[in-house]
Amino acid sequence: MERNILLTIEYDGSGFHGWQRQPQVRTVQGELEKVLTHICGIPVALNGTSRTDAGVHALGQRASFKGDFGIPADRIPLAVNNLLAGGASAQNGVGDVRIISAEEVPADFHARFSSRGKMYRYIIRNLPEVDIFKRHYCYQICQPLDLAAMKQAAEYIAGTHDFRCFQAAGGQERETTVRTIHSLSIQKVSENIIIEVSGDGFLYNMVRIIAGTLAEVGMGKKNPEDVIEIIESGDRQKAGHTAPPGGLYLIEVYY
Amino acid sequence: MERNILLTIEYDGSGFHGWQRQPQVRTVQGELEKVLTHICGIPVALNGTSRTDAGVHALGQRASFKGDFGIPADRIPLAVNNLLAGGASAQNGVGDVRIISAEEVPADFHARFSSRGKMYRYIIRNLPEVDIFKRHYCYQICQPLDLAAMKQAAEYIAGTHDFRCFQAAGGQERETTVRTIHSLSIQKVSENIIIEVSGDGFLYNMVRIIAGTLAEVGMGKKNPEDVIEIIESGDRQKAGHTAPPGGLYLIEVYY
Repeated sequence: MERNILLTIEYDGSGFHGWQRQPQVRTVQGELEKVLTHICGIPVALNGTSRTDAGVHALGQRASFKGDFGIPADRIPLAVNNLLAGGASAQNGVGDVRIISAEEVPADFHARFSSRGKMYRYIIRNLPEVDIFKRHYCYQICQPLDLAAMKQAAEYIAGTHDFRCFQAAGGQERETTVRTIHSLSIQKVSENIIIEVSGDGFLYNMVRIIAGTLAEVGMGKKNPEDVIEIIESGDRQKAGHTAPPGGLYLIEVYY
Repeated sequence: MERNILLTIEYDGSGFHGWQRQPQVRTVQGELEKVLTHICGIPVALNGTSRTDAGVHALGQRASFKGDFGIPADRIPLAVNNLLAGGASAQNGVGDVRIISAEEVPADFHARFSSRGKMYRYIIRNLPEVDIFKRHYCYQICQPLDLAAMKQAAEYIAGTHDFRCFQAAGGQERETTVRTIHSLSIQKVSENIIIEVSGDGFLYNMVRIIAGTLAEVGMGKKNPEDVIEIIESGDRQKAGHTAPPGGLYLIEVYY
């Protein structure tokens, strides 16, 4: 009987060319499919929720796959993780991708199409000196950032808008560029400015362009009110730069 | 006039094949010599204090070089760091090696031969679950470790001994394997067990073998008292495993 399995996955994106399977290069989907195919004894093709870019991390990526195979769902994580931690890419006995949980889901469930939304975190480290040991894991800005201005700008971004201005070229074709951001919070936690954004869907590079725009507001290159005009214009050129991938974490997928 | 410059250097060892220059592969010495040669306008050859292995980190590596060139010592760090942070290996705008300071030293000063000793730190992370984001930066042991037993074993290691038992094959020839460990402390700081060892010199892989031996004491595979016999035996086979490189940090060089 065909089963449908939903995985929750975490990975450090710094050693991957992104989520999506590609020939010749190491991707999260590619690595996981190889190991799952070995463990399940059938060819496994994953449907991931988010096609994260190279260098982007995930604490709660989701992916589902179907097939007729024997291993109980709750034994998949350990079986996969043991193989991954023993792989050539593991460092000091620890791999860079890990399955947190696996569960049986109904036949019509699809990790991407059944999703109601997602939550991402973007970490900006704001100290006068960079920390080379954190270079894969945050966006390091050495000049002081104006947190209050960033928070004000965030309020203009939250809500339902046409977010074309925050969309990079090169993504999939979309029917509409209108999205709803349910919440966009900015908090300072010790040296980090942590941006958390949840919404019903995100355009290509949208979170990183929002983070880059908020960073420019923090640096005083843009006023918080400029964001209103940027969104109204629908013009990518008016928005801020695309913040680097290492600061971005896919935290949660909502079903 | 020939000048003599002493550098203090930090690096994240995870992207390097160790300190020592080698053809074809990326090493810390090789990267720094390339950039320094460019900035000083003369061929620069570095004398590093410690030939750290692949994956080993440094917060306070030292290296000296001689030559007749113009740039003031205090302008070297920024010039080098800017080039490194713009290089192909930089991530999110931050490089993985950085010069902290540069100073003029007398002609007879040599970063290695003038050194009186060094301090290393070894970090063991001790929680039931691994953290994949820390896989390059610590040794992750999931079973509980007996800290009191490790501290007791450490007391037997400190002092002046023939440390042949803690020497891996493959290092340089040494006149003697007697060394003095001035202090060997073990502290629990949140989830990490931090081993700090300072001494007048260290044999090849000595700190990692000490860390592996202490870890085995913590796991109950060895008794603290076994360490006395291991040292007396001079037998590498009796000592513990070589702990992985990512947990090791060269902290300070004493002159």
